[in-house]
Amino acid sequence: MSDNSPLDFDLVVLGGGSGGLAGAFRAAQHGARVALLEPGELGGTCVNVGCVPKKAMWLAAELSGHVALASQFGFEVPRDPRLDWPTLIAGRQRYVHGIHASYRRRLDEAGIALMPVRGRLRDAHTVQCDNGTLLRAAHILLATGSSPRRLPVPGAGLAGISDDFFHLCEAPTRVALVGGGYIAVELAGILQALGSRVDIFARAGRLLGHADAELAQRLQDNYRHQGIGMHFDYRLAAIEGEAGRLTLRNADGDASDPYAQVILAVGRTANTSGIGLEDVGVALDADGNILVDAFQRSSLPHVAAVGDVTGKATLTPVAIAAARRAMDRVFGGQPEARIDYDDVPAVVFSHPPLASVGLTEAQARERHGDDVHVARSVFRPMLQALADRPQHSLFKLVCVGAERRVVGIHLLGEGADEILQGFAVALKKGLTLADLHDTIAIHPSSAEEVVLMR
Amino acid sequence: MSDNSPLDFDLVVLGGGSGGLAGAFRAAQHGARVALLEPGELGGTCVNVGCVPKKAMWLAAELSGHVALASQFGFEVPRDPRLDWPTLIAGRQRYVHGIHASYRRRLDEAGIALMPVRGRLRDAHTVQCDNGTLLRAAHILLATGSSPRRLPVPGAGLAGISDDFFHLCEAPTRVALVGGGYIAVELAGILQALGSRVDIFARAGRLLGHADAELAQRLQDNYRHQGIGMHFDYRLAAIEGEAGRLTLRNADGDASDPYAQVILAVGRTANTSGIGLEDVGVALDADGNILVDAFQRSSLPHVAAVGDVTGKATLTPVAIAAARRAMDRVFGGQPEARIDYDDVPAVVFSHPPLASVGLTEAQARERHGDDVHVARSVFRPMLQALADRPQHSLFKLVCVGAERRVVGIHLLGEGADEILQGFAVALKKGLTLADLHDTIAIHPSSAEEVVLMR
Repeated sequence: MSDNSPLDFDLVVLGGGSGGLAGAFRAAQHGARVALLEPGELGGTCVNVGCVPKKAMWLAAELSGHVALASQFGFEVPRDPRLDWPTLIAGRQRYVHGIHASYRRRLDEAGIALMPVRGRLRDAHTVQCDNGTLLRAAHILLATGSSPRRLPVPGAGLAGISDDFFHLCEAPTRVALVGGGYIAVELAGILQALGSRVDIFARAGRLLGHADAELAQRLQDNYRHQGIGMHFDYRLAAIEGEAGRLTLRNADGDASDPYAQVILAVGRTANTSGIGLEDVGVALDADGNILVDAFQRSSLPHVAAVGDVTGKATLTPVAIAAARRAMDRVFGGQPEARIDYDDVPAVVFSHPPLASVGLTEAQARERHGDDVHVARSVFRPMLQALADRPQHSLFKLVCVGAERRVVGIHLLGEGADEILQGFAVALKKGLTLADLHDTIAIHPSSAEEVVLMR
Repeated sequence: MSDNSPLDFDLVVLGGGSGGLAGAFRAAQHGARVALLEPGELGGTCVNVGCVPKKAMWLAAELSGHVALASQFGFEVPRDPRLDWPTLIAGRQRYVHGIHASYRRRLDEAGIALMPVRGRLRDAHTVQCDNGTLLRAAHILLATGSSPRRLPVPGAGLAGISDDFFHLCEAPTRVALVGGGYIAVELAGILQALGSRVDIFARAGRLLGHADAELAQRLQDNYRHQGIGMHFDYRLAAIEGEAGRLTLRNADGDASDPYAQVILAVGRTANTSGIGLEDVGVALDADGNILVDAFQRSSLPHVAAVGDVTGKATLTPVAIAAARRAMDRVFGGQPEARIDYDDVPAVVFSHPPLASVGLTEAQARERHGDDVHVARSVFRPMLQALADRPQHSLFKLVCVGAERRVVGIHLLGEGADEILQGFAVALKKGLTLADLHDTIAIHPSSAEEVVLMR
């Protein structure tokens, strides 16, 4: 083989995050020869600077809360235990490295060629690696993910982004989180629980614009009670000062208190640059995401895209499911395989967690007017009650029509992260309030509240 | 009104446990004049010596485990924290008394006559209270519950029953639990976690004869790892010794180690004596339970029975649902109202919890032969992995037919107690493996394993 002769594959995947890996594995299962290009760590955002280490930190924050509860229960433990961050971080990274190793082993076993390089499309069937190697493939799967956005304000470079949260080795004394979406909410809750004093600065008038307003309001109440400061309708104009002592300045010129750390959590941008999309004519949408149809096909034949880079329901399990279906379609003889982007369940790992699927009350009223019936349950879980804590859960069902079809399920409270999945299955199958009432409750639990609401 | 003139009601309820209360409230909602007779505490077994205080103790045991996990995470807490039992018990009983108060308030608000007396049927429409008062009613609801059984062996009186567990004010040093059902399993797990050294003596060859064998086996492995001793196929012949130093003797004459406490958890018996059933001709089944039809009707017209006293799916939520349906039928103009005893979900609050609904693998194979497909997932939840603990979860789906209809869901692992409810709703609606796969996973969670199993 000469230096210039391209290597031939059935599929070249750009990006070794969750979507890219899932696509590569599924294609290989269907017998395709696959090359996977990933210049960084395997697992992408989810495994390295997202879901996985975030959940590890969330679990630590929850455990810290449980130690405090244990003290109320009569256990001889400090109410506010000191945390040795290096132990926590070492354990977390050991877990992450275990996932890397598992991916590498599985790629080996599947016979997938893993190339630790960046690739660039030359045409619809050719990828050039940044080491010069040319790859030819019948199909290309784009799964390059997304990156945290920075704000175009003076001093933005002084702030960190969510990636930097994962490099922390101790709790900063005071942290400003700029943003009101789920990333800001998750990082704020974790940092506050693990020793920081956190303030949130959100552009909107509330947290979690995508969530049901009533639950978001209650979560805000919880966060206030936990000591998190919240500034809404905030227009950030500049970040000033020096590392370790940063202040925010708003559009009116007012300066904030100083913060040891400022973290921007103001959205993410699809990773579409430097991979040749413009050269070969892969179309982007107005927000800069790769435009795909319902089958994940880009504007270029034989080039598909999945995950964050498409901007559609940017969640790891969506990327994975979309990649698998796309490969079932391309290599598995299932021409109709695609995922349904409706009714995707999702959890915000706040304290307590917020889980939801389907329409919020506001969305339902917009679509169905007065034909909306809302059932809600506000209750104090036994764990909170026994410890004489005020934290209540708020569970809410959004129903429409005389038959009370459930079109939205919204759960805020401990356990919500694990409770929702089964109800999401039921909702997708077509669920009515009567179906819920016909199922015997599991007592005592939080989940039973969902089947007992009127 | 003379001394002998009976008081008139539409409904007299015998028993103020969960079923009796639910029936009384529902009947009152339908406009019935209701008398509720309860000589003891309101809430019956569930609230006083069952589900509620048990869950409180289980939560304490879980918290103790979480403190140990927190230590592994890097929190400066003792791995094996001392527990001040009186604080725990006081908090638990405060919670229980809160429920009593809430019931009394709701009974008042509903205009239900609460009588703290025992009642006895004189005929199908007359109840005589033990203070002599006569009550007449169009309908009678029997909800007198059940009581722990004692074994007919010498020395059985030296042992406690599950009720006595709730009178403990400290962890006994060594405890023998006689029985292998869910009560024995729950009490054993709690006591071991809260400071006792526990041995289980079970008549059967395994724990939890009603549960899927594979999950029961794994739970046994977990219990062994927690330090619980297990003796199977054990034939108890006698209990000997004196309070604080008791030994068990088996059918072969072998004596056990001495125990500070022996607790019998060998089943429960319906509370049918002393309430006049034999006088008025209410029929019992062979096991001594009140015989009822699908509509909870006893052999005597206008006399219904619900809950443990019927021996059918003896779970609090079943008693509640059955009572409500029965009152909807009698007073609510819903002649067909009744509950479906199939696919009742239930949780054993072991460590970790075991949740199941529908058929076990063995039951499915008995009914469907080779047409059974089992999907299982064995995984280590992130919390365990991060703390470098060996505890794995085992989730199992039992499916039948080419369409892989899900007829059983069995979950052993942390969170199983909250995960199952939604899946139980879906199963009842008719669920296939493909329905599960069509739902997007919630990542990272334990619940997502249920929709990802093949």
